[in-house]
Amino acid sequence: MAEAKKLDGAALAVTLRRRISDAVDRLEGDHKLTPGLAVVLVGENPASQVYVRNKSKQCAEVGMRSLDHHLPDDVNEHELLTLVHGLNNDPQVSGILVQLPLPEQINPGAVIDAIDPAKDVDGFHVINAGLLSTGAAGTALVPCTPSGCMMLIGQHLSELAGLKAMVLGRSNIVGKPVAQLLLAEHCTVTMAHSRTRDLAGECRQADILVAAVGRPRMVKGDWIKEGATVIDVGINRVEAEGGKTRLVGDVAFDEAKEVAGAITPVPGGVGPMTIACLLRNTVIAACRQNKIDVPDI
Amino acid sequence: MAEAKKLDGAALAVTLRRRISDAVDRLEGDHKLTPGLAVVLVGENPASQVYVRNKSKQCAEVGMRSLDHHLPDDVNEHELLTLVHGLNNDPQVSGILVQLPLPEQINPGAVIDAIDPAKDVDGFHVINAGLLSTGAAGTALVPCTPSGCMMLIGQHLSELAGLKAMVLGRSNIVGKPVAQLLLAEHCTVTMAHSRTRDLAGECRQADILVAAVGRPRMVKGDWIKEGATVIDVGINRVEAEGGKTRLVGDVAFDEAKEVAGAITPVPGGVGPMTIACLLRNTVIAACRQNKIDVPDI
Repeated sequence: MAEAKKLDGAALAVTLRRRISDAVDRLEGDHKLTPGLAVVLVGENPASQVYVRNKSKQCAEVGMRSLDHHLPDDVNEHELLTLVHGLNNDPQVSGILVQLPLPEQINPGAVIDAIDPAKDVDGFHVINAGLLSTGAAGTALVPCTPSGCMMLIGQHLSELAGLKAMVLGRSNIVGKPVAQLLLAEHCTVTMAHSRTRDLAGECRQADILVAAVGRPRMVKGDWIKEGATVIDVGINRVEAEGGKTRLVGDVAFDEAKEVAGAITPVPGGVGPMTIACLLRNTVIAACRQNKIDVPDI
Repeated sequence: MAEAKKLDGAALAVTLRRRISDAVDRLEGDHKLTPGLAVVLVGENPASQVYVRNKSKQCAEVGMRSLDHHLPDDVNEHELLTLVHGLNNDPQVSGILVQLPLPEQINPGAVIDAIDPAKDVDGFHVINAGLLSTGAAGTALVPCTPSGCMMLIGQHLSELAGLKAMVLGRSNIVGKPVAQLLLAEHCTVTMAHSRTRDLAGECRQADILVAAVGRPRMVKGDWIKEGATVIDVGINRVEAEGGKTRLVGDVAFDEAKEVAGAITPVPGGVGPMTIACLLRNTVIAACRQNKIDVPDI
């Protein structure tokens, strides 16, 4: 059979950013509104610094305001919460993102709870989790990686109702919200995890397989149903030839692409969608805060 | 093979109420605290009146305070919200339950949102849904019928990890929270519904089958895996001989009991557990509000 269609997240993210950029232009033209994303970075974690820099850059590219706050590694929880409260009350700030992980003297749950749910563009606040879980995704801010997964699935499948979806991994950031989004699209959804028996057999039943477990190449080719849509959320660094390292997903891509109908590569699949969906959430949040109809982006 | 073990919810509810009664005695003895449940009934719906009367009666039986508020059918939303705010601020009120359905001039979502999540003993508030969905069930108030389902499953199975659970129906009141509770117990959980293909085949894989669809005797004997634990949440009134009616579940009990390992009857299965779990939530809420360790009930 033919090789699987490659679901190109890098290209889709470009398209999405263009739509966001157009929406930002219209908000400025029609409403004198410039969405603003506040990013709070604590300490000097190099990976976090790269990620935050990418966010700022992409904000600028779509014409949004980017407000970076860099706090020292030894900041205390009270100081961080004071900053968050200030951002909650700042009308120029549409979205707030506190980059995780945080230093150990700070309880991340307390910080996320302190963010105004209407500005919680990561979608991690308990109120946004509750809205998503009770089927009010249209009023929630939905976590970014799961939103990106759904858009990539939508590149290959126009109708999801009745399809069997398998979600591997049950994190609050990816697995659970993506399961809720698939359920909202009327899939029959199974949540599997490290305690699941016969994981391979379970996966082989799935029309849609979302892998979000963080184990390099765990999902083998013979775990995949012929023609399935495979979304690989994993980003794992492994040793490569010549003492170098490279990034691989949770799916053994080379085997899987021979069986699947469509599959996301790693890198270049789900990854690039996450920041694009963060920008999208910021536009959505800005519109809702200003009682403007949310554009179709 | 032997007929299925009957999971007797009426008997388990008696045991649970006894434990609640003992806990209430200790709270009074040790802390001079009497948990109080405020029940708000709007209008003259006969089924609601019966249900509310049962709640009051069972409150009294376990030694809790019951505070009933009966409002006329033509009450407006503002008046109802004012009552709810007053109950939120009343230290004698540990739990608040607004009986549904409400008359059409009132938005039930607005009323549920107005209840202090710490007093939301129905577990329907978006914050409690979010806490349950993100795995913080230990801090949430969990919806009563799903809690009852889990206790009944626990009557037959001491360890759920790795078992395949199938939840039929995806309501916010039963299906979704019961799926989250099963996932927290490390089951592999599938959520199925009216759009699911080959529902019978899906069900036949399940070690635990929870039916909550409201369709009389939909689940047939040959949908059930031999030895499975079957929890029937349905309560459907159907015509019986002699022009009478009777209650049946979502499962064809007479067929199912020949195949299942354990099964709840209707009536007398899940039904009696719901009010008992409501009383339990009221004790839990009272303890948390007063910073008292929650007793093991």
